[in-house]
Amino acid sequence: MLSFECDYNTGAHEKILQRLCETNYEPLPGYGTDKYCESAKAKIKDACGSKDAQVFLLVGGTQTNQTVISSVLASYEGVISADTGHINAHEAGAVEYTGHKVVALPQKYGKLDAHEVENYLKVFFADENNPHMAQPGMVYISHPTEYGTLYTLDELSALSRVCRNYSIPLYLDGARLGYGLMSDGTDVTLKDIADLCDIIYIGGTKVGALCGEAVVFTHANAPRGFFTSIKQHGALLAKGRLLGIQFDTLFTDGLYFKISRNAIIAANKMRDVFRKKGYRFFIETTTNQIFIILDNKKAEELKKQVSFGFWEKYDDSSSVYRFASSWATTDEDIRTLETML
Amino acid sequence: MLSFECDYNTGAHEKILQRLCETNYEPLPGYGTDKYCESAKAKIKDACGSKDAQVFLLVGGTQTNQTVISSVLASYEGVISADTGHINAHEAGAVEYTGHKVVALPQKYGKLDAHEVENYLKVFFADENNPHMAQPGMVYISHPTEYGTLYTLDELSALSRVCRNYSIPLYLDGARLGYGLMSDGTDVTLKDIADLCDIIYIGGTKVGALCGEAVVFTHANAPRGFFTSIKQHGALLAKGRLLGIQFDTLFTDGLYFKISRNAIIAANKMRDVFRKKGYRFFIETTTNQIFIILDNKKAEELKKQVSFGFWEKYDDSSSVYRFASSWATTDEDIRTLETML
Amino acid sequence: MLSFECDYNTGAHEKILQRLCETNYEPLPGYGTDKYCESAKAKIKDACGSKDAQVFLLVGGTQTNQTVISSVLASYEGVISADTGHINAHEAGAVEYTGHKVVALPQKYGKLDAHEVENYLKVFFADENNPHMAQPGMVYISHPTEYGTLYTLDELSALSRVCRNYSIPLYLDGARLGYGLMSDGTDVTLKDIADLCDIIYIGGTKVGALCGEAVVFTHANAPRGFFTSIKQHGALLAKGRLLGIQFDTLFTDGLYFKISRNAIIAANKMRDVFRKKGYRFFIETTTNQIFIILDNKKAEELKKQVSFGFWEKYDDSSSVYRFASSWATTDEDIRTLETML
Amino acid sequence: MLSFECDYNTGAHEKILQRLCETNYEPLPGYGTDKYCESAKAKIKDACGSKDAQVFLLVGGTQTNQTVISSVLASYEGVISADTGHINAHEAGAVEYTGHKVVALPQKYGKLDAHEVENYLKVFFADENNPHMAQPGMVYISHPTEYGTLYTLDELSALSRVCRNYSIPLYLDGARLGYGLMSDGTDVTLKDIADLCDIIYIGGTKVGALCGEAVVFTHANAPRGFFTSIKQHGALLAKGRLLGIQFDTLFTDGLYFKISRNAIIAANKMRDVFRKKGYRFFIETTTNQIFIILDNKKAEELKKQVSFGFWEKYDDSSSVYRFASSWATTDEDIRTLETML
Repeated sequence: MLSFECDYNTGAHEKILQRLCETNYEPLPGYGTDKYCESAKAKIKDACGSKDAQVFLLVGGTQTNQTVISSVLASYEGVISADTGHINAHEAGAVEYTGHKVVALPQKYGKLDAHEVENYLKVFFADENNPHMAQPGMVYISHPTEYGTLYTLDELSALSRVCRNYSIPLYLDGARLGYGLMSDGTDVTLKDIADLCDIIYIGGTKVGALCGEAVVFTHANAPRGFFTSIKQHGALLAKGRLLGIQFDTLFTDGLYFKISRNAIIAANKMRDVFRKKGYRFFIETTTNQIFIILDNKKAEELKKQVSFGFWEKYDDSSSVYRFASSWATTDEDIRTLETML
Repeated sequence: MLSFECDYNTGAHEKILQRLCETNYEPLPGYGTDKYCESAKAKIKDACGSKDAQVFLLVGGTQTNQTVISSVLASYEGVISADTGHINAHEAGAVEYTGHKVVALPQKYGKLDAHEVENYLKVFFADENNPHMAQPGMVYISHPTEYGTLYTLDELSALSRVCRNYSIPLYLDGARLGYGLMSDGTDVTLKDIADLCDIIYIGGTKVGALCGEAVVFTHANAPRGFFTSIKQHGALLAKGRLLGIQFDTLFTDGLYFKISRNAIIAANKMRDVFRKKGYRFFIETTTNQIFIILDNKKAEELKKQVSFGFWEKYDDSSSVYRFASSWATTDEDIRTLETML
Repeated sequence: MLSFECDYNTGAHEKILQRLCETNYEPLPGYGTDKYCESAKAKIKDACGSKDAQVFLLVGGTQTNQTVISSVLASYEGVISADTGHINAHEAGAVEYTGHKVVALPQKYGKLDAHEVENYLKVFFADENNPHMAQPGMVYISHPTEYGTLYTLDELSALSRVCRNYSIPLYLDGARLGYGLMSDGTDVTLKDIADLCDIIYIGGTKVGALCGEAVVFTHANAPRGFFTSIKQHGALLAKGRLLGIQFDTLFTDGLYFKISRNAIIAANKMRDVFRKKGYRFFIETTTNQIFIILDNKKAEELKKQVSFGFWEKYDDSSSVYRFASSWATTDEDIRTLETML
Repeated sequence: MLSFECDYNTGAHEKILQRLCETNYEPLPGYGTDKYCESAKAKIKDACGSKDAQVFLLVGGTQTNQTVISSVLASYEGVISADTGHINAHEAGAVEYTGHKVVALPQKYGKLDAHEVENYLKVFFADENNPHMAQPGMVYISHPTEYGTLYTLDELSALSRVCRNYSIPLYLDGARLGYGLMSDGTDVTLKDIADLCDIIYIGGTKVGALCGEAVVFTHANAPRGFFTSIKQHGALLAKGRLLGIQFDTLFTDGLYFKISRNAIIAANKMRDVFRKKGYRFFIETTTNQIFIILDNKKAEELKKQVSFGFWEKYDDSSSVYRFASSWATTDEDIRTLETML
């Protein structure tokens, strides 16, 4: 059945499968110390334009957020997030499980506002009772956000400035980073992000890999003992090659960006189709996620032919639904969808 | 270079790669709810001979131990382990990271003795100060152990009896379970294990998979909310298919057992070679791990041609080294090794 | 200097000191197993009107909240609280430190609304993605709230009904419980609370004790191993007598209620004084906390003669300040305050 | 009944009670910011001979160990302890509850040996697999130990040297510190301890206070945010005065040392009595704890008249029992005991 349910509903880009098959019988050392991991890390540093970046390859998104956040924070610190941030809303309390508060601030279209963060910090540090509260130790943002929206370069720069004024690291969750970078609307490059953020993760799972997320400490700022922390979180793969080969492939000849662009072109076509057919958009996005308001009955009917995700209730008779393209979406998929709408 | 360093130095069994390629473009739901996961679970339950078993697929060993142990224990309980147990010695404090004490008991060749465990429990519960101590909430064993040794059916039955007398679940870490089950020396079957233990994990990573461990709660005894716990530990794969397809392949037509047997045959041949050449064994094993005492100089020389693992110091001039076979070891590997010894 | 800064700025009620002195040289067993602890617990059960209640004596409020909440919740559960709830705002992330999310809902005058809680639960359990979220495992309220307000019997009953419908325990933080029970405005008794809530804590520190909070599991519902949990949280006093003697004294001849009433009478007089002098109230309260809007300059001036607490900014030139009475406040204190206003 | 069960079976030294009564109605700021806390801290720094020491007052021993250890360790670090160390044996897994492994080394009479620690560290850091293990981040010792024994100055110096060579802080649990310092056998002063250790806690609960332990970071080495950590652990008293007044009293005119000496004199007399009567000592101690091997029947009989503690089984018919003196033990107590033996 046709599926626009999410961007992780197929396997991996075929070049990845091919490389996994080709290298299968090479004996390699374990735990991410093999040559493919090294090569992948070098290419990622290069793509980030940061010679002193430190790169680590982890398996999944919640795991990455949990391991990074708990390793960077002091035990008495919390992390600031938009209340719709993935760590606050959909990771089963994984950050809190490691002992740290998620301090949720209001958001607009999934984004944190630099002024709002600055104001929070100003009030916090002005409050003489603040030693009785979890101390702000990190700002977490996602780009694209959970709503498929993007920070502009100005917005990201402003957030970065606030964080640096307060000596608080800025962490960017890039589970769908490729789809943000290749969006028509964006003025933000990977190098900008590596420059403005202190830690980022470049998502593989949703951008053509079977699994895998690449954490980048952008300026030699990985916490001491981070390797041991990865192990301690159960996030260290014995066969690190599985991650190394995938990221090495994705960052060879710009594959990561090319296949991300495919998803954006597909999403643009889908947006055109929805617009042409008179559907209402819940949020305007330029990435691979499209949020459509559908009458519930219409949605039920459509679901017989195509799968897509429920997002949230809109009113008594209609809801918001998400259609996602991915690196694997074909023109034919879009054409078939069009016939159903 | 020839490598006997470990049992995770190559990729995956080719049937696994083939199935991953064949199914690559099928759109499947995420998070382990796809049909391959379902099929894999059904086959594993069948192999365990337990109709009411509950099966979950996780990514790696430390992660599995951490997630299972912390989910089963009450917050004030600890887990009993041999002091050489993987959770006590080589998982970077992953269990303690989740708030639980590992209570280490002495071992013999990596094994816990039922009498020793019983005595510990007897003394513990007789001590009127025991409410001031971490309560014993689980017994952890590995099979094969970290020393490549195996419990006999009698030994395992005795441990099971003690645990059941005290209403404490028995958890078996089967990172290398296949190599234990297919060993010449063993009188323990998978069904015995499922019958005698409350929770087991069947290792994939070291037995032909790229990654993946199958947790089996052997009699409908998974803790409430275990799915959420997996997520909370960062152990839930978005593309659960990666695990489902691998385990479905491994448990189709007995592949898991066949390839495990290959490792045992290879190890038997290696043992013969070592014996013939007059090498000293540190421990007698019947599984895929062989522990040899080598003069340190001899070891340095050998390492130029073949890789193998340092285990521990033996005396001032010699050390214990580990040679491991795996599902992928070939006759030619053994023959080449022989020429080097 | 005159102080209305808080309700813990003096020592203990003199009867408590007297009993501590009288019993000082009696040898008593440790860790809360002495006869004074037993007597205190029996009297508290009696005051709660619950024969099968279980009572534990802890030292301080944050400690009590942390120990109770983390012991009652399963590892994958979080606790619902008003966003102004003490556990969410002013306990330094103590609940999160034990691994559990505080799910903050909007409040009105510090109170959770039963409909709001019910709606949250309804939406949560209707969301098919809820297994990816921290599961609601407790509802936390404070009474009086951090704003000095009180639940009516109707409001508390409604909350209790919602919690019982969803099988989620209702926990009442009574750090200032005496001041709530003795308020003129209230229709809620201690027996009502014990009846409607599953766990409560009766505050000693702010109501005449040097330290101490009495946790009541109202219907034999203490978690198994709770004594060990107390120890594990570092919350078990070797000289448990310190808590036992204090609570035994407070619950003999209704002392707890009498001295609480003193604070209410004092607060009523203070309210009259403020009203007479034309001061503006930020919130109408009937307990021992009074929130006044003061011009910042006026406040600075006043602070030279009397101490009181800053609460929050009101507008650019004025702020909300808190004046608290306590069990120890005298008529003369109020008269002196009046001369300063 | 006569009691030698422990050193916390009576209340507080009467000067403490007197000071609590005298200061009872002084309004004081909360959370340890009052003048008595300040005074106590200054006196403790003075007694330690360390001008840049930082002192914090906590409530109980397990709480202190938990708060200090978890605040000093990085998240991936563990603490080395004798296997009989209080944190390993009798604190209900409180350290592990905060996420950190207790690495237990063998002990002799409750003491860690510097050579043994050095050897452990040498082997650990030589092991190339050590990044897969909990990193050693602290060495914990108790003085007096749980067996009533004491480190000599040489032994303590050697441990200190090893720790400093490896840049690992040395933490001394002084729950009974006074009884160690005033022992006839010792050549270790408080200033030596403050000089050789990085963190110490001076026990109040067992040395004449109702509760309270004073943590000393001996050279301005308190972790950033330690106040918030105390709050986060539920270890911050609202009425900090309770601790301040007690420690201020104990460290005025050497009271702490005088009353500790009383316990030693009493213990010496008890040892003479036991010796004279032909009792067998399990361990030779010079502090306030005496370990006697008693026939179990004899013990049962004795228990009708005097209380004392069971320590451990000795053989089938006899056990080790502990008799403890304290600051409050009188000559008459000893004389009465003598008549019973």
